[in-house]
Amino acid sequence: MRLAGIEAGGTKFICVMGDETGKIIDRAEFPTQTPEVTLAQVIAFMAEHHAQGKLDAIGVGCFGPIDPLRGSKTYGYITSTPKMAWQNCDIVGQLQAAFPAVSIGFDTDVNVALLGEMRWGHAVGLTDAIYLTVGTGIGGGVLVNGQLLHGVMHSEMGHVLLPHDLVRDPFVGCCPYHHDCLEGLASGPALKARWKVDSAMQLPEHHPAWALEAEYLAAAMMNYLLCFSPQKIILGGGVMKQRHLLDLIHQKTRQLMNGYLKSANMESLERTIVLAKLDQNAGALGSLAFAAQCVHE
Amino acid sequence: MRLAGIEAGGTKFICVMGDETGKIIDRAEFPTQTPEVTLAQVIAFMAEHHAQGKLDAIGVGCFGPIDPLRGSKTYGYITSTPKMAWQNCDIVGQLQAAFPAVSIGFDTDVNVALLGEMRWGHAVGLTDAIYLTVGTGIGGGVLVNGQLLHGVMHSEMGHVLLPHDLVRDPFVGCCPYHHDCLEGLASGPALKARWKVDSAMQLPEHHPAWALEAEYLAAAMMNYLLCFSPQKIILGGGVMKQRHLLDLIHQKTRQLMNGYLKSANMESLERTIVLAKLDQNAGALGSLAFAAQCVHE
Repeated sequence: MRLAGIEAGGTKFICVMGDETGKIIDRAEFPTQTPEVTLAQVIAFMAEHHAQGKLDAIGVGCFGPIDPLRGSKTYGYITSTPKMAWQNCDIVGQLQAAFPAVSIGFDTDVNVALLGEMRWGHAVGLTDAIYLTVGTGIGGGVLVNGQLLHGVMHSEMGHVLLPHDLVRDPFVGCCPYHHDCLEGLASGPALKARWKVDSAMQLPEHHPAWALEAEYLAAAMMNYLLCFSPQKIILGGGVMKQRHLLDLIHQKTRQLMNGYLKSANMESLERTIVLAKLDQNAGALGSLAFAAQCVHE
Repeated sequence: MRLAGIEAGGTKFICVMGDETGKIIDRAEFPTQTPEVTLAQVIAFMAEHHAQGKLDAIGVGCFGPIDPLRGSKTYGYITSTPKMAWQNCDIVGQLQAAFPAVSIGFDTDVNVALLGEMRWGHAVGLTDAIYLTVGTGIGGGVLVNGQLLHGVMHSEMGHVLLPHDLVRDPFVGCCPYHHDCLEGLASGPALKARWKVDSAMQLPEHHPAWALEAEYLAAAMMNYLLCFSPQKIILGGGVMKQRHLLDLIHQKTRQLMNGYLKSANMESLERTIVLAKLDQNAGALGSLAFAAQCVHE
């Protein structure tokens, strides 16, 4: 198969050309500017490959919120994003106009990353799993009974409200919509704003930032375990590059749960909450896995 | 069809005999004592009907945590409940021994109530919905892509952690496992303990208890909307008998969400978050709907 994948992020678009085995033969990155500029670059990159041999499918994992529901009037659009230039942008329509006979798959970046982990990573063979990215934003993709969860839209689990002790942590969060939501308290920008650093990577391993970060993430882990009863929660994104954070999350999740759940996924929390196997490639590889699924649709 | 339903609750067991149209021809209630006493009463009630004409199936909606996964070693058991006499009680095994050739369905009380609403209530034709009971305990059943969610066990969404301002509400909650969880802050026993009344029903409509109750429930609604993107959230249970509470929940959910989600289910929150149509019968009727599903398995 000749497959194209697009990881459409708020900061950059990553395009890959490859096949159903996950072999990547070409790759390009474009900063996220306006749709006119960036989509033209993406289309030009793919058109060159398409000219050498027809593409079988394109898989797109996109920042959101988006409309991923086929048949909906705004299917294939980015909808109410705070990135104004991209509001109500018809991504699938523009790609389909450029590649009329090529199948296109369109879903959230995190659902697509989960597809990558299902094909080549820690979610192979699973029926119930979550992929959570903790980076510039926090978002999750969810698999239930072997199918991706969409509901009327898609999960936006980065904005769940959490306990927040303002005495211990007076930082009100950086989410423009809500106080006390996970993204506002624990994303990369939240770490930068609370601790007044240029990058969360500057915070050394024993800085109190990480214990607090782990507390918020552990509260979210507990809520996801209780709501979805997943076999695994797979963590990706820039903040999770801090490898010591995972141990802290395990410890604090166990403390918070306090013996309540005696389920298979709690017996070994270390095997349940894991780092993405595809690491920072989950999105790009996921978009190829997604494209492979779309070939016969 | 000749169907039996059992709503196995922590306080009482309700048994119904009926058919696939939801017609109930007989009904009995037994207080929840020990498994020996109560299951003997349940079995005696059903055996009388079985003697008059073979039962086609039995649907059981059970308090939990339970193991509802066919093929698991403890399938059909109540597992780690704080009700000691019922820990590791093999409900399905005992029923199957009494009615060897009869199909038995076994799931959580809330998943079964959701099945009732799917057949005769507010979830007819839906693919993504939640049934939440707010009573002695708080628990939820979940439908995703047309299938009940189980994962490695089942949802335990009553124990999700929520923001809790200890200055405004110094009550630490009544959950023996965690502070700041929904059940500990907003169940019937929480209302009784916080406001020092014998029953939450004694609290008049304009008592500040209800605004606070609505805040906790609204925070949970917001988190469930964000996580599951459901078409509807259906509320049942004794606390929801306070009809004015629903309006407060709508108001406060909208305030908390603060315009973040622009999805179909947020456009009319009043049509998304609703009271159970089957009212206090959701469990009993749901167990018949469940039994009807099991006849041909």
